[in-house]
Amino acid sequence: MNQLSPIITLTTDFGIRDTYVGIMKGVILGINPDVQVVDLTHAIPPQDIHDAAFTIHAAHRYFPKGTIHTIVVDPGVGTDRQAIVCEIDGTFFVCPDNGVLSYLLQDIGNTAENTMNAVTIQNPDHFLPEVSNTFHGRDIFAPVAAHLSLGVPLANIGPLLQDLVVFPILTPRASGNTITGHIVKIDGFGNGITNISESTVADAATSYEIRVGNTRLKRVNRAYAESEVGEPLAIIGSYGLLEIAINAGNAEISLGLKWGDIVEVQRFD
Amino acid sequence: MNQLSPIITLTTDFGIRDTYVGIMKGVILGINPDVQVVDLTHAIPPQDIHDAAFTIHAAHRYFPKGTIHTIVVDPGVGTDRQAIVCEIDGTFFVCPDNGVLSYLLQDIGNTAENTMNAVTIQNPDHFLPEVSNTFHGRDIFAPVAAHLSLGVPLANIGPLLQDLVVFPILTPRASGNTITGHIVKIDGFGNGITNISESTVADAATSYEIRVGNTRLKRVNRAYAESEVGEPLAIIGSYGLLEIAINAGNAEISLGLKWGDIVEVQRFD
Amino acid sequence: MNQLSPIITLTTDFGIRDTYVGIMKGVILGINPDVQVVDLTHAIPPQDIHDAAFTIHAAHRYFPKGTIHTIVVDPGVGTDRQAIVCEIDGTFFVCPDNGVLSYLLQDIGNTAENTMNAVTIQNPDHFLPEVSNTFHGRDIFAPVAAHLSLGVPLANIGPLLQDLVVFPILTPRASGNTITGHIVKIDGFGNGITNISESTVADAATSYEIRVGNTRLKRVNRAYAESEVGEPLAIIGSYGLLEIAINAGNAEISLGLKWGDIVEVQRFD
Repeated sequence: MNQLSPIITLTTDFGIRDTYVGIMKGVILGINPDVQVVDLTHAIPPQDIHDAAFTIHAAHRYFPKGTIHTIVVDPGVGTDRQAIVCEIDGTFFVCPDNGVLSYLLQDIGNTAENTMNAVTIQNPDHFLPEVSNTFHGRDIFAPVAAHLSLGVPLANIGPLLQDLVVFPILTPRASGNTITGHIVKIDGFGNGITNISESTVADAATSYEIRVGNTRLKRVNRAYAESEVGEPLAIIGSYGLLEIAINAGNAEISLGLKWGDIVEVQRFD
Repeated sequence: MNQLSPIITLTTDFGIRDTYVGIMKGVILGINPDVQVVDLTHAIPPQDIHDAAFTIHAAHRYFPKGTIHTIVVDPGVGTDRQAIVCEIDGTFFVCPDNGVLSYLLQDIGNTAENTMNAVTIQNPDHFLPEVSNTFHGRDIFAPVAAHLSLGVPLANIGPLLQDLVVFPILTPRASGNTITGHIVKIDGFGNGITNISESTVADAATSYEIRVGNTRLKRVNRAYAESEVGEPLAIIGSYGLLEIAINAGNAEISLGLKWGDIVEVQRFD
Repeated sequence: MNQLSPIITLTTDFGIRDTYVGIMKGVILGINPDVQVVDLTHAIPPQDIHDAAFTIHAAHRYFPKGTIHTIVVDPGVGTDRQAIVCEIDGTFFVCPDNGVLSYLLQDIGNTAENTMNAVTIQNPDHFLPEVSNTFHGRDIFAPVAAHLSLGVPLANIGPLLQDLVVFPILTPRASGNTITGHIVKIDGFGNGITNISESTVADAATSYEIRVGNTRLKRVNRAYAESEVGEPLAIIGSYGLLEIAINAGNAEISLGLKWGDIVEVQRFD
């Protein structure tokens, strides 16, 4: 971990109307005044663990090694769900054990070089003196993240954990010359992000048809501006995934996109 | 005050669509480039001094001693209302003298150990060179907070002030086996936060009935998830106060909660 | 440039629902962990270059010299529009070459002392290793800003550029005793900000009539609170420009103000 200027990120469903996020920062800076705290997003849909799991997976790779990602989307707060720290290749994830790391752990399975260690959070030395039943973000996750940023080793947080909660991830399937995937995220612009990767549609010598609902798209754009304003389009988006968008518009509203919608890509060689 | 890495927090009704908050940070960092600036909230309802007073009282305790809290909810900007710095037990509050510290000052009255010093902001050496009539957040409050973070003493800001503006605080009343309190804050989730403290409903051997409007609740939850989705519930919330909520729902909308609503807690011993 | 604690500001139309802003911060802090990153605003209306141009011009003066302002309002991303760094009097602007500096460059024309140097961003050493077609904020603008904050000279970014894209700026015209200007910005409170400067209405011995649509105002307020709640008013606002507002209300909605509306100021000596 980078001992100088460590970074703690925050991903929550708290919104920013209230002081809950600011309070977490107060707790963190009270323990480590030199940390950089970065808001990843506080607009995860309420209690939407799946959206949080997609989000942290898509975003964490742009932060330096040693970053401590704190994810508080926690419908089970106050129940007996575990709180965990998971270290993957030198990057830390502090969160409830509720499936929020499912996308990340899928990658572990796919790549032999990854190393992963997880512990349950049990040592109250790293908590606030009083722990509420409703706000572990403030009382447990924030102070544990801050202590990690000071170099506290994982073994000091709690005992090793072997089996983390994961939920099944939607994955595309190939059949003949057609790949069938899904919308796995609607972003704030109303773009529908699929689980279909860039490589699926990367062959410049090939033509493709992309189908979602009643929409048929005959090519993959290089730029939003290649289509007319208001026109639906397919493009490789910011996450390296195929996206369904509308130039200067909102595909969620105009095309009625929603999470889980089937997206088909057919090759014509 | 902690001379290393001081913290300045910002609480305003500016929203975040505009650059007003960012400009305050530019002014602060131009004076003290090493300070940590934390957004507490910028979603205080416009000119709602009472909400700001509840908010800063509830949140300040999670920041380390020496933190400088800047509160700019200021309907009287440009009139002859005073601007003040108030130091309570080594923590600083920079704000208009309009009642925004009422909840904090009530605590002072209740606890002999508290020390409090207040000054009116008068020394223009700590202002921006030009002071507008409409944006003292930028021209006065931000630079004064930044100079405080550099160690400028209170006496250098302006003369001592004895009587700060306070407004009456709603407080619960006990009669027989019933406590009558109020909704004093609706948070961003639509939870109704009361002024009834945890100790009122803490006796595990006792049963309680909680009444708000037409809603009758027969217990105090330990976790939101103890109730069915969509069901109203009472819980000790993040501020150590009794809250009226709906599991995975919005009590403000579903129960019609609003500020000042009566909440009754009856004990059955 | 201030080598200690440089500041990078971010102005985008990304909103804050997604992680796009957080990811840009991860990229920046991965390159320079000691920079202060400040959100100026992420609520520029989608692809509204004109609003971004007004915004950065109005806000940049409150940041210290050496600040690096990153503006990502970029409808042409993925096309052949240039990316640029423009240095004006020791302050840096990192942005697409699409007119977003038009207000700033107008000032240059008006003041002989200003110095300006601009380069096109071409050296891929300062980009992320992979550059997407859709998110140059992350792949180009953020890492270039971070490298500038480490002291990389302009000449190392790319070749000098002489002609930047500018669009015509609305400017007020005088005729007899009347100045005719325009609403050039609606802020988040619904205030209509004009391009008419403070000096136009500064003569205390003179009376003025201000006309916008069907509204007639007989004076320029010193404070919002000088007018009754709900009453329209004219005031010199936070940017030193004449604003049309409603005390404790929303002039955009109540008066139907919109960008480009004519505002007339008539003097009665």
